[in-house]
Amino acid sequence: MEKYPILSTIQYPSDLRRMRLEKLPELCDELRTFIIESLSENPGHLASSLGAIEFTVALHYVFNTPDDRIVWDVGHQAYAHKILTGRRDAFKTNRKFKGISGFPNPKESKYDAFIAGHASNSISAALGMSIADQRQGIDRKVIAVIGDGAMTGGLAFEGLNNACVSPNNLLIVLNDNNMSIDNPVGGLNQYLNSITTSKFYNRIRFKAYHLLKKFGLSDKQRDVLTRRGNALKMGSSGIHNIFEGLNIRYFGQVDGHDVQQLVKVLSDIKDFKGPKVLHLLTRKGKGYAPAENAVSVWHAPGRFNMQTGERIKSPLKASRYQDVFGETLLELARDNEKIVGITPAMPTGCSMSVMMKEMPDRVFDVGIAEAHAVTFAAGLSKEGLVPFCNIYSSFLQRAYDQTIHDVALQNLPFVLCIDRAGLVGSDGPTHHGAFDVAFLRTVPNWTIAAPMNEIELRNMLYTAQLPGQGPIAIRYPRGCGEGLDWHGAFESVAIGKGVCLQKGNDIAVLALGPLGNRARRAVERLAEEGVHVGLYNMRFVKPLDTALLDEIAQQYQQVLTIEDGALQGGFGSAILEYLADRQLTVKVRRIGLPDHFVEHGTPDELYQLLGMDETGIYNALKAMLK
Amino acid sequence: MEKYPILSTIQYPSDLRRMRLEKLPELCDELRTFIIESLSENPGHLASSLGAIEFTVALHYVFNTPDDRIVWDVGHQAYAHKILTGRRDAFKTNRKFKGISGFPNPKESKYDAFIAGHASNSISAALGMSIADQRQGIDRKVIAVIGDGAMTGGLAFEGLNNACVSPNNLLIVLNDNNMSIDNPVGGLNQYLNSITTSKFYNRIRFKAYHLLKKFGLSDKQRDVLTRRGNALKMGSSGIHNIFEGLNIRYFGQVDGHDVQQLVKVLSDIKDFKGPKVLHLLTRKGKGYAPAENAVSVWHAPGRFNMQTGERIKSPLKASRYQDVFGETLLELARDNEKIVGITPAMPTGCSMSVMMKEMPDRVFDVGIAEAHAVTFAAGLSKEGLVPFCNIYSSFLQRAYDQTIHDVALQNLPFVLCIDRAGLVGSDGPTHHGAFDVAFLRTVPNWTIAAPMNEIELRNMLYTAQLPGQGPIAIRYPRGCGEGLDWHGAFESVAIGKGVCLQKGNDIAVLALGPLGNRARRAVERLAEEGVHVGLYNMRFVKPLDTALLDEIAQQYQQVLTIEDGALQGGFGSAILEYLADRQLTVKVRRIGLPDHFVEHGTPDELYQLLGMDETGIYNALKAMLK
Repeated sequence: MEKYPILSTIQYPSDLRRMRLEKLPELCDELRTFIIESLSENPGHLASSLGAIEFTVALHYVFNTPDDRIVWDVGHQAYAHKILTGRRDAFKTNRKFKGISGFPNPKESKYDAFIAGHASNSISAALGMSIADQRQGIDRKVIAVIGDGAMTGGLAFEGLNNACVSPNNLLIVLNDNNMSIDNPVGGLNQYLNSITTSKFYNRIRFKAYHLLKKFGLSDKQRDVLTRRGNALKMGSSGIHNIFEGLNIRYFGQVDGHDVQQLVKVLSDIKDFKGPKVLHLLTRKGKGYAPAENAVSVWHAPGRFNMQTGERIKSPLKASRYQDVFGETLLELARDNEKIVGITPAMPTGCSMSVMMKEMPDRVFDVGIAEAHAVTFAAGLSKEGLVPFCNIYSSFLQRAYDQTIHDVALQNLPFVLCIDRAGLVGSDGPTHHGAFDVAFLRTVPNWTIAAPMNEIELRNMLYTAQLPGQGPIAIRYPRGCGEGLDWHGAFESVAIGKGVCLQKGNDIAVLALGPLGNRARRAVERLAEEGVHVGLYNMRFVKPLDTALLDEIAQQYQQVLTIEDGALQGGFGSAILEYLADRQLTVKVRRIGLPDHFVEHGTPDELYQLLGMDETGIYNALKAMLK
Repeated sequence: MEKYPILSTIQYPSDLRRMRLEKLPELCDELRTFIIESLSENPGHLASSLGAIEFTVALHYVFNTPDDRIVWDVGHQAYAHKILTGRRDAFKTNRKFKGISGFPNPKESKYDAFIAGHASNSISAALGMSIADQRQGIDRKVIAVIGDGAMTGGLAFEGLNNACVSPNNLLIVLNDNNMSIDNPVGGLNQYLNSITTSKFYNRIRFKAYHLLKKFGLSDKQRDVLTRRGNALKMGSSGIHNIFEGLNIRYFGQVDGHDVQQLVKVLSDIKDFKGPKVLHLLTRKGKGYAPAENAVSVWHAPGRFNMQTGERIKSPLKASRYQDVFGETLLELARDNEKIVGITPAMPTGCSMSVMMKEMPDRVFDVGIAEAHAVTFAAGLSKEGLVPFCNIYSSFLQRAYDQTIHDVALQNLPFVLCIDRAGLVGSDGPTHHGAFDVAFLRTVPNWTIAAPMNEIELRNMLYTAQLPGQGPIAIRYPRGCGEGLDWHGAFESVAIGKGVCLQKGNDIAVLALGPLGNRARRAVERLAEEGVHVGLYNMRFVKPLDTALLDEIAQQYQQVLTIEDGALQGGFGSAILEYLADRQLTVKVRRIGLPDHFVEHGTPDELYQLLGMDETGIYNALKAMLK
């Protein structure tokens, strides 16, 4: 660690707290270089973490972690935190199979005070923690660190709305980099920008607060004075402070990259009673020019050349499902002017950016607000448009009620594109799309489809926008398809119909989604041994192809179901229900995600671990043949 | 209709719009009497609807409904709307089996522009509708009517945050009665109250706006001027306008019971471009003294004597499950000081009010904010408390992600009390608790229990707070239990263990929850005919009692599962999965909620309709015996 003379001396925040204030900028520089260097080799979330270095150092310097609690929101930003809290050497295993997690996780470290993976939960969680401490007479600081992107989620607002109700000393650090993963969205963002304009006032206000403290005024007195100051400030500049309106003291804004000033400010306000927000201005990608200049791309850039900033792209072996979605949607939208696109803050991630570029007024990026995305799209549908609403499977959990109450109950035309369905890889358990089949198929009126490859995805998207279609969900995974040429003419897909890929004896393999391709290879391997089992691509979880199932039940003694989703209540479960309801006696084995949270790793590593890869399927078939 | 000389002439809003402005107060009086009289006989949501009469009349008077769209939030408040839109005579069937719905429903009337049943969806839905109209060149007004209670839901904030992003002319009518069903909660409520104080200013401002219009200033110019006015006002009174901060023009506050003034104000602002909010002050129960004086009780008072205001209580045949929950929770909290209660705006409905009364600082009513309720409670748990979080099944759909991400992933001690599980009766499809078993059992780490009667509920609540327990959900229905004396000593319930109620031949009935009592009567009826089938109270969906199931599979040829929840992915489905995984060959029939939304009616009517009553179960068993 010669390159990192200071960082190498720090294992834990207690080491950090022994440092002199003046040395902190050097430590920040080393941390920055360390993160850039590490991520150039082992990919991760770069831009957010670079923007959070200084205040991370300041927080651990001022607060007595882990006894004081830092609750990270999302956790993209928490790499410096990981490195400073006993995981510097382990950081090279970040996001790798059996390595450390890319997000804070209490199972990994006592410095990770709460789970972080889905945005906007930090205020509610930290508020609960702070109140619990107060109730138990524990004098402890709880700090929520939330980005301006995450502030647009309804859960964050619910947290804010409750922050002033019960006694607590919660500190909310608003890490305002004026970005979500993509561009920020909404009135709140514009509002936060508008606060930014009055720097002069803020400087005066902070000094005043500091002086008042020196003069020995009580918190209560200072509170009244600073609040009055805010009111005046807001009035005079035509801006209204939302936080003060919700009875949360507002301090801001402060340069989030001046570590020494941050230490001073945090020291000043840390004993201030009651809920408070500290508004920091930061820059995503700070200190690394390539990232500062293209923050969306550098959110999670993959491997790159540290010196040149050139991203090292491994050539893709096939189009990604996201490419198929993005380009197909644009084609469809060109032909069908009723089509509109809705994404909760993921235009680049899901490739709706392709349509957005050509038709900016027909794509709505609503910010991190999945529930709104679905209800808003339902409103668009109610008045005659055809919404394509794209949400990652694990984030769709946040819009579950809306898929029931606002869509299914009204049986509206609605194309729900469930991206990141199934195992997602290195983002791990918070991001795996495990539950969508189970939670959606229990709801009446939804059609649920899962393409086996790029061409099927394309044709399902085409079919979904044809007239007369009610709510339809199309689930597909993160990443590459099968390498097929999918640019052909559109063909409509028969709703609720599966296809026989290969007839066989004894066993019928019923596959849902791209795992069918692994199943095909397993079936071929068996065929080379002279054993011929049947293979069916079921395409739809709902409605099930009951005619095909009747046929299968007549022709085979056993069935193996395969799905990239939770077994509890999933596709295989739907098959069992149908067979039982029709009193069809076929033995059923099911392959899918087990009843525990699956760790992070590459999809191939995880499929192998879980017996869902070609070999696992082959072995399952062999066992069934015995 | 001699009692209602004006109302009787109005079938549709077009009739209303032919009336002279001066006659509207009389119409409002008649509407009020009509609603009170109707509800005294046929129970419904009284207090909210009485508070909404004047602005409902004004909206239909000023706007060209149904071409203009009114989107009601929740819909408790929409009785006047129903009566004025072709359903005056049908109103006597309100909430009855095969009668009209208690909430707006587009299937029922073209005047019901969007579904309303779950709070906080109106802004997002109406925004989508307004933008869709603009895109399609349709000149139509869209109005969202939202209560101050519903404004605390995160979805409403997500809607507000997006209201200023795309061009639209949305009007948000904020019906501020300073109440949710119970007392209002949170910073926003305090904030809305604080606006209320500056009446003088508002009067001036409205006049100014009116004058500016007369002078022919453009909307844009007036916008700038009124905004500046708001800023000044807020600055001078120390209040910050949240709506203006989100770039939504704010008009308020206005007396929501002065129908003539409301007509003037709405006429003034209806052509104002861009999103705007009109803040009305109303009074829940307005015009009916008993209701005005006790609004929580009169939210949905049941039958009552119209003259005396005396509520006509049918004597309950048994304690309600809610009574058991409320009183048991208090008892447990007295003994275990780690217990805290959390409710999203339903302290009276779920009976957490019992504990609240004795221990106000240990119960947290977080307002309509289910997602926050769960994450906040997870925070309390993370720091060592034992949260009892009570949420109605259909509203838990709004906290689904939080039960996964914030609770299950961290495997926290957490007692999730799922009230209103199963069919709820007259509130209908938006409120039936159909899906909780399916959506929760697919998530790892959750224990899911369902008591068969009051004593089991009591003992499960006791067991859930014992040390060493992870997340546990206890689901139980709305309404009365079996009339058992449940006040005995606590006994712990073995987690994951069912009980045999009666051994038998051929068929084993596996019941979950209180439907087991109906099953018992069906089984007894069969026994009287000399046919003895087995009956098992399974108690837990997860973990299943696999030892008992192994035994049952050995002893019986057939199994009948019974549950008050969706069959798709539900309890019966879990049984099928286990039997298949163990290759146990038993024929399984399942009774439960079908794959369509179930209408409203009394639970008895609905159970009969769906073959889930004693006779339905008896018939199913007879069919299996053939």
